[in-house]
Amino acid sequence: MNEFELIDLIRNACRQTAPAPVLGIGDDAAVFDLPVGQQAVVCTDTLIAGRHFPIHTAAADIGWKALAVNLSDLAAMGAEPRYALLALTLPNADGDWLRQFADGFSELARCHQVALIGGDTSRGALSITVTAVGTVPSGQAILRSGAGIGDYIVLTGALGQAAAALGYLLAAEAASAPVDLASAVPPPHWLQALRRPHPQVAAGLALRGLASAAIDISDGLLADLGHVLKQSACGAELVVSEIPGYGELQARLGDRRAQQCALAGGDDYQLCATVPTAHWPAVQQVFRDRGLPPLQVIGRITAATGISVIDHQCKSLVVADAGWDHFG
Amino acid sequence: MNEFELIDLIRNACRQTAPAPVLGIGDDAAVFDLPVGQQAVVCTDTLIAGRHFPIHTAAADIGWKALAVNLSDLAAMGAEPRYALLALTLPNADGDWLRQFADGFSELARCHQVALIGGDTSRGALSITVTAVGTVPSGQAILRSGAGIGDYIVLTGALGQAAAALGYLLAAEAASAPVDLASAVPPPHWLQALRRPHPQVAAGLALRGLASAAIDISDGLLADLGHVLKQSACGAELVVSEIPGYGELQARLGDRRAQQCALAGGDDYQLCATVPTAHWPAVQQVFRDRGLPPLQVIGRITAATGISVIDHQCKSLVVADAGWDHFG
Repeated sequence: MNEFELIDLIRNACRQTAPAPVLGIGDDAAVFDLPVGQQAVVCTDTLIAGRHFPIHTAAADIGWKALAVNLSDLAAMGAEPRYALLALTLPNADGDWLRQFADGFSELARCHQVALIGGDTSRGALSITVTAVGTVPSGQAILRSGAGIGDYIVLTGALGQAAAALGYLLAAEAASAPVDLASAVPPPHWLQALRRPHPQVAAGLALRGLASAAIDISDGLLADLGHVLKQSACGAELVVSEIPGYGELQARLGDRRAQQCALAGGDDYQLCATVPTAHWPAVQQVFRDRGLPPLQVIGRITAATGISVIDHQCKSLVVADAGWDHFG
Repeated sequence: MNEFELIDLIRNACRQTAPAPVLGIGDDAAVFDLPVGQQAVVCTDTLIAGRHFPIHTAAADIGWKALAVNLSDLAAMGAEPRYALLALTLPNADGDWLRQFADGFSELARCHQVALIGGDTSRGALSITVTAVGTVPSGQAILRSGAGIGDYIVLTGALGQAAAALGYLLAAEAASAPVDLASAVPPPHWLQALRRPHPQVAAGLALRGLASAAIDISDGLLADLGHVLKQSACGAELVVSEIPGYGELQARLGDRRAQQCALAGGDDYQLCATVPTAHWPAVQQVFRDRGLPPLQVIGRITAATGISVIDHQCKSLVVADAGWDHFG
């Protein structure tokens, strides 16, 4: 399979119902318009085999996730995803692998009406860099810097499941090769969270104009919320037991590991947003009206900097300085 | 050096006079506006150590080139470069290396008023993916598909120099390690062409509205012109001795190697454009008015498909089918 066939395969797999750009794949660059009154929102993220996903991950899951992590960044801005570019580095031109990769990528692209408009292929260690382009009405992007004292801190869904599932897989891998997945027993929805994270695009759109700040949880709640606090010059109090899915983590993994996964696991791709209390009824209403799962309040923004985490008995678990400096 | 310091270093090195976007580095994504009546033009290209550049290439040259190859794609569309995103995969967080890389990247960014608005850092084998965003007045992008029978085929500058210089370096590397550059004798301007290619942005802008098609020469003239011919459903006749710099290649390398370098060497980042004869006087005038080096006519577009290459004595050198399917 030469590079032309390779590109053609991806292009065909991703041919879909998304609104076409002015000019897509096949020239030196792609061309697109912005609707009147809209701004472009753009991000790029790399996934590397053995670092961002286990080496034996199914090609379709890699394709899905490479797009998902970028759409998650757009979601955190309140942007509507529109286009993607795919820079793919492959050790060899394996048609079967590529077909599955393209299937996973295009399955998620179709969900969100994203058109693949360009890319590049190279030979080398497996690595995928996706650039995603979205749009927001001018001035309405949700930034990290807007959190205000007293705001609710909310989550769109469960944290820690992907990290917990990865823990099972790595343990199984260390114990025996090849991995016998039957001997590892993460619940299926944890594996699903690891393999097919759903970028919270609809929630991001619903939060637009209502949330004061938002971020997606890719490096873990403490690290990512830390970015919001640093840029908003404030702190936070969290109740760990209010984190969606925390009870299940606790039941299966015990307190210590449950806290690690929920607070610092990462790879979650849920949104963490701050909502002024005055906007909270409107936010709940919008989520109900749009049929979105309800947001969970897990804490409040404080004037004192740092993050204070307590359990349901108000026992203090973590007191950390704000400003964790991870980059995804 | 942690990832935060690493990002900060790049951000500071690239802080410059380019027009700022609405929102740059430091949030989940960047936000930018399009000027009224303009379209966005976007491309992405990956450089991999040992494949797209020799492993011992100076960090500053890698930084320059990673941006240059993308600006060259924008130039071929007649677009004005505006923004770049940088996804950088590094084997380790070496501050010196990164500072030099950022210097080279930002030197070229400043030349073209390009603002770095986002990116990602990962650990792994050295690989750089840049996404570049430019603008064109709506409907004025120069496509590959517009070449017409009888059009002149023109080049913005010399071909084959980068490939010839790389040949010297690889030969020296094979003969002795470490490479003693003093023992290899490519002329300095050939090395410069390899290490610091200048994307032909000004030429691309000057060709807008006048050229019928354009492409940048990254995979070699025959391969890249082949894309234009395929998309324009026509063929070409070229005179190899009319290629700028051909005489020097011939004098140093002999006929056979000179032809290889000029026709198939690649890594040139000159533009190859087709110009309707009726537009030729206007094109020459615009290039004179803007102080740009004159374009060189190297052939004509033909109705018969394929590329026919002759030397200055009209001896036929190559007759090839159109449609070389390389991807950069």
